[in-house]
Order: sequence, then C-alpha cells, then structure tokens
Amino acid sequence: MEQPQRSGKTLREIVRATTIIEAPRLSRLLGATVTIASETFQHTGSFKFRAAYNVASQVNEKKIIAASSGNFGQAMAYACLLLGKSCTIVMPATSARVKIDAVLEYGGQVDLIDVNQKSRGARVAELSAESPDAYVASAFDDPLVIEGNSSLGEEIAALVRVIDIVVAPVGGGGLTSGILNGIRRSNRNIQVVGAEPLLANDAARSLRAGHIVVNEAEPQTIADGARTVSVGKHNWAVLKNGLAGIVEVPEENIKEGVRLLFSLANLKAEPTGALSMGALLTDPDRFRDRSVCCVVSGGNVDPQVYKSILG
Amino acid sequence: MEQPQRSGKTLREIVRATTIIEAPRLSRLLGATVTIASETFQHTGSFKFRAAYNVASQVNEKKIIAASSGNFGQAMAYACLLLGKSCTIVMPATSARVKIDAVLEYGGQVDLIDVNQKSRGARVAELSAESPDAYVASAFDDPLVIEGNSSLGEEIAALVRVIDIVVAPVGGGGLTSGILNGIRRSNRNIQVVGAEPLLANDAARSLRAGHIVVNEAEPQTIADGARTVSVGKHNWAVLKNGLAGIVEVPEENIKEGVRLLFSLANLKAEPTGALSMGALLTDPDRFRDRSVCCVVSGGNVDPQVYKSILG
Repeated sequence: MEQPQRSGKTLREIVRATTIIEAPRLSRLLGATVTIASETFQHTGSFKFRAAYNVASQVNEKKIIAASSGNFGQAMAYACLLLGKSCTIVMPATSARVKIDAVLEYGGQVDLIDVNQKSRGARVAELSAESPDAYVASAFDDPLVIEGNSSLGEEIAALVRVIDIVVAPVGGGGLTSGILNGIRRSNRNIQVVGAEPLLANDAARSLRAGHIVVNEAEPQTIADGARTVSVGKHNWAVLKNGLAGIVEVPEENIKEGVRLLFSLANLKAEPTGALSMGALLTDPDRFRDRSVCCVVSGGNVDPQVYKSILG
Repeated sequence: MEQPQRSGKTLREIVRATTIIEAPRLSRLLGATVTIASETFQHTGSFKFRAAYNVASQVNEKKIIAASSGNFGQAMAYACLLLGKSCTIVMPATSARVKIDAVLEYGGQVDLIDVNQKSRGARVAELSAESPDAYVASAFDDPLVIEGNSSLGEEIAALVRVIDIVVAPVGGGGLTSGILNGIRRSNRNIQVVGAEPLLANDAARSLRAGHIVVNEAEPQTIADGARTVSVGKHNWAVLKNGLAGIVEVPEENIKEGVRLLFSLANLKAEPTGALSMGALLTDPDRFRDRSVCCVVSGGNVDPQVYKSILG
C-alpha cells in the first residue's frame, strides 16, 4: 500500500467518525428505539483502529509486537504504516487467509504459529526477547487501548439524540471500558451494557463473582473477537463498578443479529459485531421502550462464514 | 409502523446524508482513488427515497399510484407515511416477498398483478381511472424525481475532497440526471459517467444514436433496478449533453462489484448498487489515477441472491 502522508496526526484527527444508522425497522421489531453506531467503516473495518493507533502513536518504540488472529492485527499494521513504524503480528497458522492477507497488505509482518505447538503468548515472549526495543501491545489490557476506545464513547455521548443505554460487545473488555470512560467525560446519564457470548461468559461470571474469572480454554464461540480467556486487569478496574450489566447471548441469537442487520438495516456485520443486536433479542425486557445505541464493533467476516449465517 | 411526527419537513431536512466511505483497499486494487457515496443507509435503503419524498411532498394529490417491483415502491410508501398521504404500489405477483413486505410495513397498499396477463402500465391506468384524484408517479421520468435526486449531486459537490468523476448506475436515468443537475449548481468541474448493465444498454445505445433507443423487452440483468426499457424523456433531456459517457458492465463484473464491496469495503450492496464498481472493473483505463466517487445506489437484496453472488 502506498506510503500515506498523514503520520503525525492525533487519534481524533485521523479516526473516522462512527457511522450512525437510524433503524426504524429494527426498532419496530425489537420494541425499542434502536440507533446503530457502526464501526464497520472505521479504518481497517473495526473499532480496533482506535486502540491500535493510540498505542502506536503514544509509545516511543519504533517496533511493535502483538498477537492477534483478527482485527487488532490489521489495525496495528495500518496504524504503524501511517506512523512510519513497523510491527510483527503473531497469528495462528489456521487464521483465515483474508485476515493474513489484510495484515500483509497494510505492511505488517506476519509470524504464523502452530498453536498446538506453542501458545501465542510464548511466541510473543520469544520475539520480544529477540527485539528488546519493541513494544509488546495487548489488544485490550492496556490503558492506551482503553483511552483509544474512549473516543467512541465520546462520540456517542456527543450525539444530539436521546440515548438511555449503549450496548457493546465484551471480549477482553477493551471496548466497553473505553466507552464507559468516554461517556463519563460527558454530563450524560447513559448506561453501558455489555453483550457477551454465553459460550464465553467469563466477564458476566466475573461481575457475579466480584473478581476476574478465567476461562479454562479459549471458548469456541462464532463471535471470534470475543474468544478471550478473561477480561484484562485494566479493563476490569473500569468495568466492575461501571457496567450496568452483561447480557449473555446464545450463539443462535448472535447469528440472528447478523441476519437482522443484513435484512433490516443493510449492514454487513461480523458475528462479534452483531453481539449487541443479539443482546436485544436475548433480553428484550431490559431494553423495551428505551432508546438504545447498539455498537456494531466491526464488519470483517469471511464470505463463507457470512453465507452460512445467512442460511 | 407508528405514525411519524415529521411530516411537513422539506426533502433536505429529512433526507439522510449519503454515507461517505474512503476505500483504500479498493483504490489500490483499481488504480484510482475511490470514494464511495453509499445510499444503502438512506431511508428505505436506497436513493429512491430522495425522489419519492420530493414527489409526494410537492404534489397536491393526497393519493399516489406507482408501479415498482423494488425500491421506488418502498420509498414512496414511506414518504407517504411521513406525509400523511396514501399510496398504491402495483407490483408483479412474482416480486420477492421481502419487497412486498417492506411496502406493507411502511403502510403502502400493494396491488399484485400477473404481468403475463396485464402490464404494469395497464394496471396503473385502470387504478388511475378508478381514482382520478390520484397522482400517477413515475420512478424516473418526472422533473420532481430528477429534482429530488439532485440533492445527492449537491451533497457530492459539497464534499471537501478532490473528485474528478462521479460514477452512478443508469436504469431509467433518474439518478444520473439528478446528480448532473445537482453538480451543475456548484462551481465544480466533475464529470458524471453512467454505469449500465451491458444486457440493458439502451441508454448507451441512445447516446450513440443521439436519440432514445427502446429495448424490446425488460432486460433480465441481475441489476434489477436497471431493468427499464428506456430512459425517460425528462432524463434524456439532461443526459444527452450532460453525461461524459456510459460504461456497459457485463453481468460478471456487476457480481464482482458486489463481492469487492463486501470484501474490501464492508459494504452490503444490491447488484444495481454495485454497477459503479463494476464500471471501474470494466473500463479501468478511463478511471486510472483519477479521483472517483462511486455511487452505491442501494442495498436491498434478497439474502438468497446475495449468497449466490458471494459464491
């Protein structure tokens, strides 16, 4: 990709404003006033660019190492391209080809591993030892990630419309903690509710337990952006007293969310992006007659997966 | 759908601004700087709302009759709902169920006909004779339609970025004639190029012949919004000396346009909406190294059709 001429910009100068979509047909179906805040047209197709650019522009290191099978890797590769930095993304060898290609297209280096032989964390540690001058970036558990994602909370709080509740996906908690912090800077009284796959409900269990609960293994939900073993420490510090609740979304409602966004809002969402819509399907009483902003966190999905969900 | 409280607004107050999407990955692939102007999130999912609302708000008649198997019908139904008017949409009995349902959901009356027994025009004439107080609306051949669609041309001309060429689909010519008129009101030097299915190339043949050429039958292109037998008289008056050219897009390039918008821009487009992308694939030399605004005219497509195109 050609060398951009935009490096040096701040996050808020370079980020694309979230796409606000009024959804009267979804509103009617779901019995709530639904506004979609879509990050599918953000740079690299997901909200992750907000975090990646903030990390890459704030740290002094010229080289960044991160593990990601998906959106954070693309986002970090593009952020580094914009900033004249380099990055290595550790990805499972089984990653979708389109995701590997996207990282390469944005100028990132891809380090493929067999996750049955070596964990991503172990490989990142190896690379870090080889390049002690590199910054090792977490996709969620980093104050710079939370700060980057807070820009979305600020945008939502700045909208000139009634919003009672924001619903956003929970994986490692980077997005919801960022949205919470962004909204807190406004004077608005807006609840933030997490939408987490039932199959990967460690954050919901953590809220119930009062401390971070860790999954034994990476849960195999279709919402691949939420296949985290636990929320991060930095995220937990914000979420534990900030979230108004978490809706645990069954797989079928995640898929139905993808289908409804397709049919009634013309929006291509990835399964993780449809979690917020799935939350409205799963717990309609919580949202009935309220004005709800559903964050669609990203749109990068393999055509074959998408086809199978459309059914 | 609940009775809205917005009637009385002008078109420019009520229309949703087109969604501008920068598309660096498409730009790289196509060798041009591609900006997408997407009407997929317009009210009722296509640019047709601009025309329908302008017609329904400008005419004195309280009842409107129109023939449409697709987007114009939905758009007119919703426009009439907003304005407290009524409408009857004549549709082929073979129309996709989702399209019939959308008209009904927006409060329109649907009049289904067997097109093998009676033409849409004949049925509209019958209904008009029964209701002489009703306005018979054309989806394209009406100055009010062109004026409504000119709002999109104005929006594009108002963008703060270099644009050399706007590419937009041609069916009856309502969209391109509107965009031309809208751009002419600005001081900008922007070419308008039409994108027409090769299978339904009456407008391209008309430009070559210097007069309106009529297809013998409705062409069966996958771009169902362009299955018109000819451009309209009012449209022709604008297009004949206004268009910089028409690219005739083979069916395979229409489908490839849908796929590229899906894969590289996260955008769900209907086949007609992907014609402009198909034009860049078909005639790359015309667009190389230029700054091109591709109008994606709508996103309403049946899931089964969409799946088959994703392949």
